[in-house]
Amino acid sequence: MKINELFGKDLYVVNIGSPTFLKDLDSQNVKYENLEWAPPAHGDVELIKVLDKLERHKEEIDKANDEVVAKVKAAQGKLVDCKKAIDAIPGMKPNMILHSGPVQDWEHMADPQKGAVLGAIVFEGWASTVEEAEEYLKTHEIIFSPNHHLNSVGPMAGVVSPSMPVHVLYDEVNDTYAYCPLNEGLGGVLRFGKNTPDVIERLLWMKNDFMPVLAEALKICGGIDVRNIIMQALNMGDECHNRNKAATSLFFREITIPIMKTSFPEEQKEKALAFITNNEHYFLNLSMPYCKLAQLAGTGVKNASIVTIMSRNGYEFGIKISCLPDEWFVAPALMVKGLYFPGYSEEDAAPDLGDSCITETNGIGGFAMAASPAIVKFVGGTVADAFNYSQSMQEITWSNNPNFTLPALDFKPSALGIDIRKVIESGVLPIINSGIAHKKAGIGQIGAGLVTPPFECFRKAIIAFADQFED
Amino acid sequence: MKINELFGKDLYVVNIGSPTFLKDLDSQNVKYENLEWAPPAHGDVELIKVLDKLERHKEEIDKANDEVVAKVKAAQGKLVDCKKAIDAIPGMKPNMILHSGPVQDWEHMADPQKGAVLGAIVFEGWASTVEEAEEYLKTHEIIFSPNHHLNSVGPMAGVVSPSMPVHVLYDEVNDTYAYCPLNEGLGGVLRFGKNTPDVIERLLWMKNDFMPVLAEALKICGGIDVRNIIMQALNMGDECHNRNKAATSLFFREITIPIMKTSFPEEQKEKALAFITNNEHYFLNLSMPYCKLAQLAGTGVKNASIVTIMSRNGYEFGIKISCLPDEWFVAPALMVKGLYFPGYSEEDAAPDLGDSCITETNGIGGFAMAASPAIVKFVGGTVADAFNYSQSMQEITWSNNPNFTLPALDFKPSALGIDIRKVIESGVLPIINSGIAHKKAGIGQIGAGLVTPPFECFRKAIIAFADQFED
Repeated sequence: MKINELFGKDLYVVNIGSPTFLKDLDSQNVKYENLEWAPPAHGDVELIKVLDKLERHKEEIDKANDEVVAKVKAAQGKLVDCKKAIDAIPGMKPNMILHSGPVQDWEHMADPQKGAVLGAIVFEGWASTVEEAEEYLKTHEIIFSPNHHLNSVGPMAGVVSPSMPVHVLYDEVNDTYAYCPLNEGLGGVLRFGKNTPDVIERLLWMKNDFMPVLAEALKICGGIDVRNIIMQALNMGDECHNRNKAATSLFFREITIPIMKTSFPEEQKEKALAFITNNEHYFLNLSMPYCKLAQLAGTGVKNASIVTIMSRNGYEFGIKISCLPDEWFVAPALMVKGLYFPGYSEEDAAPDLGDSCITETNGIGGFAMAASPAIVKFVGGTVADAFNYSQSMQEITWSNNPNFTLPALDFKPSALGIDIRKVIESGVLPIINSGIAHKKAGIGQIGAGLVTPPFECFRKAIIAFADQFED
Repeated sequence: MKINELFGKDLYVVNIGSPTFLKDLDSQNVKYENLEWAPPAHGDVELIKVLDKLERHKEEIDKANDEVVAKVKAAQGKLVDCKKAIDAIPGMKPNMILHSGPVQDWEHMADPQKGAVLGAIVFEGWASTVEEAEEYLKTHEIIFSPNHHLNSVGPMAGVVSPSMPVHVLYDEVNDTYAYCPLNEGLGGVLRFGKNTPDVIERLLWMKNDFMPVLAEALKICGGIDVRNIIMQALNMGDECHNRNKAATSLFFREITIPIMKTSFPEEQKEKALAFITNNEHYFLNLSMPYCKLAQLAGTGVKNASIVTIMSRNGYEFGIKISCLPDEWFVAPALMVKGLYFPGYSEEDAAPDLGDSCITETNGIGGFAMAASPAIVKFVGGTVADAFNYSQSMQEITWSNNPNFTLPALDFKPSALGIDIRKVIESGVLPIINSGIAHKKAGIGQIGAGLVTPPFECFRKAIIAFADQFED
């Protein structure tokens, strides 16, 4: 049949992988079937070669990945103590300040993180004003370290200085600990870079008044099972990253009587309880270190292609994979797309920031959005989007987690174990629910939305991963 | 075409409304389209005439129903006090015992309700043993009254005697009050007819120790907004009838600090808080009186065909409609179909019991099952069933309630205002999530499941309703 004859007839078209052709077909009222398709690895020849090579090692990689997800699923996590970072975290030094994301120096630090560091210096009493703190930095050696290097995690700026109280979580299966600073609440807080006297005063109260009450209460009750609360909260509308209302409520129920039993004055106990119940996000700083503990359990497994860390410092996004625990794979952090509070827009936003996407790394947060229809009112989109995100994350994970179920999807287990092979092959990136910080220190949260790691992190990771194997 | 010729050919059948024909078609491998259809009012000629008559008064009925649902939606409900029934409930008498469901006498009373009455007599000190209590009943006049006659509601047996503490809820929009006894917890409790010394002791503790603490705490905080908690809890996996975990948590968060601020000894406050937090169903006895208040707001509207009460005493099911507030329409209560605890079956079950379906009457509970996928693990069925029930209830309600939303159904408002015309026309009956009591007093809950009112209640109601109109 000649081509002119062909186009003279009624056509029924099958379109494969080209959305632009569809528009033409639509405009000409031509019937078609559309098949969504994209070349593996965005058609990147180097990456296709890498995938081919890894295909030849499929068996050993698959086996290693099975081991990772089994360990991650089995990990426990109990809040057992609340202590100063210097007393709790092995490797913490008296002149060290921890921060979120991959390795960072003062010069390239995002403004909210800088603001938080300056606030921490005042909080420590190393300077009495923020201006003095800037001077102090020039004349004293401060060691900056990512939280993750010391098994700590912190939301947003994630700044932890030696005297700050941290939640201490213990995994009895693996005999490991993880740490997280306490959540200060919303509004003007250190994690968004605010460092005014009211912020410092609240941090001092947390250290001097709140920490000892919580620590004694935890001794009285023998600790609180954080994993168990996450399991329940996912069936109560939380995704335990940006929505923690149910989890905070359940935690509050468990800690109330132990706090009442402590030896502190009535008013101090009352204030401690009020501090928890007045902050719907209190539990975020427990869900994060639990996810850290679980991912720790899956760290260091030879040949495993599972992501164990995703984290961002407001400048770069970094990931780590199980078999290469000492290597960060970094690329410039993206901007969060979402809903802005009145008066703000993307122009005002800092790039993606914080260790909190350890939750998504562990299969909750954005991965469990289907558990939390109400989250779309905070991060944007529709309930159907939330369902779809949870479904599509199954495409890039090695397994799923029966401990963490999605009620509206008939209690389907949440996707678990991001496999860099699957990310590269499908081009689907992990979805992250995230708060949005103002790019200037101290203004605070200006919105919330969705973001992904840059593809480049995974490109770098898979090349390094493949280098470990013989041809 | 002759009939023999017709059946000699290949047939493509359209089957309308007859499921038995389908089986034959299936067995003969005949292709068909099936149209589900049932005659209005089950084909009952009398009821069809009634519906015809009401159709001629459609305008005035519709208008009245609009008024009912507007009032119901606007009703507020705050827990303002906790008092002895005799001190709280106007019309309560020193020798009166309230019970769930429509009017009932001792002779026909279901066994769990009898057990609860005997327990109440011991609790009041009118007798010192259950045996003595039976004697007391023969020699003393006890007035039995449905809770609903005094704007009270009680789950299961629903027994309230003069000295029992009740939650007092206030609707400031309509200046009305509703009442409910306190939830004792699960297991062996009075509302399932248990009346052993441990049950009586708990009730005495509730009166002597718990009630004054709660009452003082409510004065300190100025009351707690129950409607607001229901609104939130429906977005946290509760349907606020058989699942109240989130609502109980939110209530606990609000009452903790006020209880700490009361003047009572530490230990008493601690025990009061433990009593609330150790009972996931505590909030049921707040959600019920809120629903009662809301339905009260819609009561007594001339020409309105909306159901304002559904209730059962373990023997009969009774409903009331807005325009005939003094008439019960009763029929024998049905059996609950559902999941039984190990060792029990339907043979052990009492018929449907309790005032708790005031929640469904007000558009939550079974009507809001889509908000609570986890409920299917308790009452049986699948998550899809839960979604379908919430959808199908929209067929028999006059409106829906934007205050009560169903997150998984894209925050669709829950069905509100059961219209007896629609029930009769469609044959669809209100769905109720219900606990199942053992038929013998004192054994307690043996399962949970789904039930409906008998169709007969609606048949009687619509005939009486239609009698109010001229031809």
